[in-house]
Amino acid sequence: MSPFEQIDAYLESHLDESIAELSQLVAQPSVGAQNWGMKECAALVAGMLRKRGFTAEIMPTGNEFGEGAPVVLGERKGKSDKTLLFYNHYDVQPAEPLELWETPPFEPSLREGKLFGRGVSDDKGHIVSRLFAIDALLNELSELPCNVKFIIEGEEETSSLHLHDFVRQNKERLKADACIWEFGGVDHEETPIQYLGLRGICYVELSLETASTDVHSGLGGSIFPNAAWRLVWALNTLKGPDERIRIPGHYDNVKPPSARDRELMAALPETANEYMTRYGLKNFVRGLSGGVELRLAEVFEPTCTICGLTSGYQGSGSKTVQPAQASAKVDFRLVPDQTPEEILAKLRAHLDAEGFEDVQVEYLGGEPAARTDPDDPFIKLVVETAGEVYGAPMQLVPLVGGSGPNAPFIHELGLPVATAGLGYPDTRAHAPNENIRIDLYLKHAKHMARLMVEFGK
Amino acid sequence: MSPFEQIDAYLESHLDESIAELSQLVAQPSVGAQNWGMKECAALVAGMLRKRGFTAEIMPTGNEFGEGAPVVLGERKGKSDKTLLFYNHYDVQPAEPLELWETPPFEPSLREGKLFGRGVSDDKGHIVSRLFAIDALLNELSELPCNVKFIIEGEEETSSLHLHDFVRQNKERLKADACIWEFGGVDHEETPIQYLGLRGICYVELSLETASTDVHSGLGGSIFPNAAWRLVWALNTLKGPDERIRIPGHYDNVKPPSARDRELMAALPETANEYMTRYGLKNFVRGLSGGVELRLAEVFEPTCTICGLTSGYQGSGSKTVQPAQASAKVDFRLVPDQTPEEILAKLRAHLDAEGFEDVQVEYLGGEPAARTDPDDPFIKLVVETAGEVYGAPMQLVPLVGGSGPNAPFIHELGLPVATAGLGYPDTRAHAPNENIRIDLYLKHAKHMARLMVEFGK
Repeated sequence: MSPFEQIDAYLESHLDESIAELSQLVAQPSVGAQNWGMKECAALVAGMLRKRGFTAEIMPTGNEFGEGAPVVLGERKGKSDKTLLFYNHYDVQPAEPLELWETPPFEPSLREGKLFGRGVSDDKGHIVSRLFAIDALLNELSELPCNVKFIIEGEEETSSLHLHDFVRQNKERLKADACIWEFGGVDHEETPIQYLGLRGICYVELSLETASTDVHSGLGGSIFPNAAWRLVWALNTLKGPDERIRIPGHYDNVKPPSARDRELMAALPETANEYMTRYGLKNFVRGLSGGVELRLAEVFEPTCTICGLTSGYQGSGSKTVQPAQASAKVDFRLVPDQTPEEILAKLRAHLDAEGFEDVQVEYLGGEPAARTDPDDPFIKLVVETAGEVYGAPMQLVPLVGGSGPNAPFIHELGLPVATAGLGYPDTRAHAPNENIRIDLYLKHAKHMARLMVEFGK
Repeated sequence: MSPFEQIDAYLESHLDESIAELSQLVAQPSVGAQNWGMKECAALVAGMLRKRGFTAEIMPTGNEFGEGAPVVLGERKGKSDKTLLFYNHYDVQPAEPLELWETPPFEPSLREGKLFGRGVSDDKGHIVSRLFAIDALLNELSELPCNVKFIIEGEEETSSLHLHDFVRQNKERLKADACIWEFGGVDHEETPIQYLGLRGICYVELSLETASTDVHSGLGGSIFPNAAWRLVWALNTLKGPDERIRIPGHYDNVKPPSARDRELMAALPETANEYMTRYGLKNFVRGLSGGVELRLAEVFEPTCTICGLTSGYQGSGSKTVQPAQASAKVDFRLVPDQTPEEILAKLRAHLDAEGFEDVQVEYLGGEPAARTDPDDPFIKLVVETAGEVYGAPMQLVPLVGGSGPNAPFIHELGLPVATAGLGYPDTRAHAPNENIRIDLYLKHAKHMARLMVEFGK
């Protein structure tokens, strides 16, 4: 019997226990945006590391944005002197809108081979599945095949406001040879995907106040400024129905996809029908219909997304009021080589130039895009070990639409960063009924166990 | 001692009891938009009428919009055969945003000569103050000087969806010689105002759905339609920063103010500084700064007001989500001779023509504008009797910015409709900290007692 057969057998026979441990972690809310349960969750995660013989330290964070959620650092020595660093996060997105959940978001529910709950996929399932792989290695080999470090932060869902500084300040403790990112998974054809880069982000809240109090709309309607209207007009100057961002200079630093990028994107499967069905869409924007052009637009285009609008009366029926306040949450996804600082400055200048000096811009966080070379040897190793588990070659994706704080790992620590994980297209991260498939949870643990063995050689 | 001296003395010595009765009525929530406490409030009002020897009937309403809140009809015979009809409403606006109230909206609070609470001014204070005048007349004269009828509806704050039909169906029971409207009051110089007409209204909710579920903004941002963005773009086609409504034909039926209207508007006091201070404004729209032009714009211009915006994430911090749904509450104020049916049809045609067929328009109610002749004898009587109480001549205002269902009273019942009331500029109707001044409450009761005596002659 090969060591991998024994390791796989261990994982298969201990799966229920691991899912129970994951359920316990999901049941602990840790909503960063609402500052709900963060310290409790960090303590729970540190306890899980210590149970496996890791040193685990809960470290405070803070910078000019104020105090942050603590980071959990864990470390355990292994046989070889090579070090693998896992980046994860214990915070989750808000669960709202609550009424769309089939079972309560913080009461994990197992049905039809899936576990449902807020954060079960993003990112608690990844944390516990990796610990599960470590359990198997320790049980079968009595030691880890390589040094393993964990950095598990609490602000990934709120733009990792303090992580960049934390990494810079703890370079020595985070020293490693390679990094496995918080997520990964298979596409709708069950092909495991290697995401080689992440878009950046610049998240802002636009708000304004036109009066000291709401006013009866019969009085103010003709002659008083209306905060909701001014917000609509200000937003309308940011992006038009042609989806082109109208902020002057917004596209100046956009680097178009290279020939290698286009080659990798062309090799990816068609996603158009899958998206249409899954999300109940009637169309894509800008006349896109599918093919490599849809895939390139999905990730190589900067975005300006309204994530939320708030003003005036939002209850049932009618209320005849002219709102004094209005606000919008706006998320700019950045492509190489845009930076959040640059985008923020251009946004402010644009609003001022358009006569919207009264629109306040609050920066809620951001990070630049960052990418790993598709031909790095560590990427090759992650791809090969996945092939054994998934029975399909891992597909290389040069850039992905989402964001994350990979820039400090790539640029400060100098690490190749590979993705691997238990995600799948219907995992509903950030949405109601977030879930993981149990079969993919097991596969990810098997993959990580193999990777640590081969990496240690 | 003249009968008015005795009546006034009665009102002054029984003021506390009347305020206690009003407090009881305000403590009973009756938020039509939230269907909260409506039947209980109707029963309370009917009981107050019966206590004064009125017949009082709680009558159901309903039409093609469904079942409505009940109407309370009250009647008591008097000495003369002339009949005065009071129109009031027992429903109130929603109290949100609750956090801006200094004391809870449904726990009436008396301080600094004012009574605070939701509905205390609009319109419960008017109901109880008029009943208070009747108490004084019955006490001093043993009978009413004229027949008095009350129609007290429960849908004024939700566009009186069923009142027009109700009036048409109960013409005989509502037969009268003149009507006193639900509101009135003094301006910021303590001058009592006679409002001779009301703008109409067409209140709609615009909503759309671009996907079956919210999507992570990293995925959908570049290629999926975003409900919030489509709402912003659709709204932007309705009115531009120049405040001109862009719906084709919207101004076709607007009748400009007549020479008599301009004469009456020119005689009104300046309001610009008062508005700036009271509502904390930095400017008016369209470069208006004051004078008769500001006053004409305030009421003779049709409006398009966003009363509320709702989409996506509205909590604290950031959530990176692309919303599948978005909606806006929009209130069009109508001037003579616009009608809600016409405006609704033009809005739909415009949205379709602009490519916003996906924006749903839900009609939440409306009514046309209606006006009473400034030279009607009943208006003269209301003005004269006010002069005795307020010590200042009543000022005639040809049209007011707010709306109300005066059209069926003027056009179906053929009544002159006059306003009189306890309002004042800081009464905060529809806003947090709604309040009345106790001195004006007393004056309104004195005015109504005089009016009934003179009207009966």
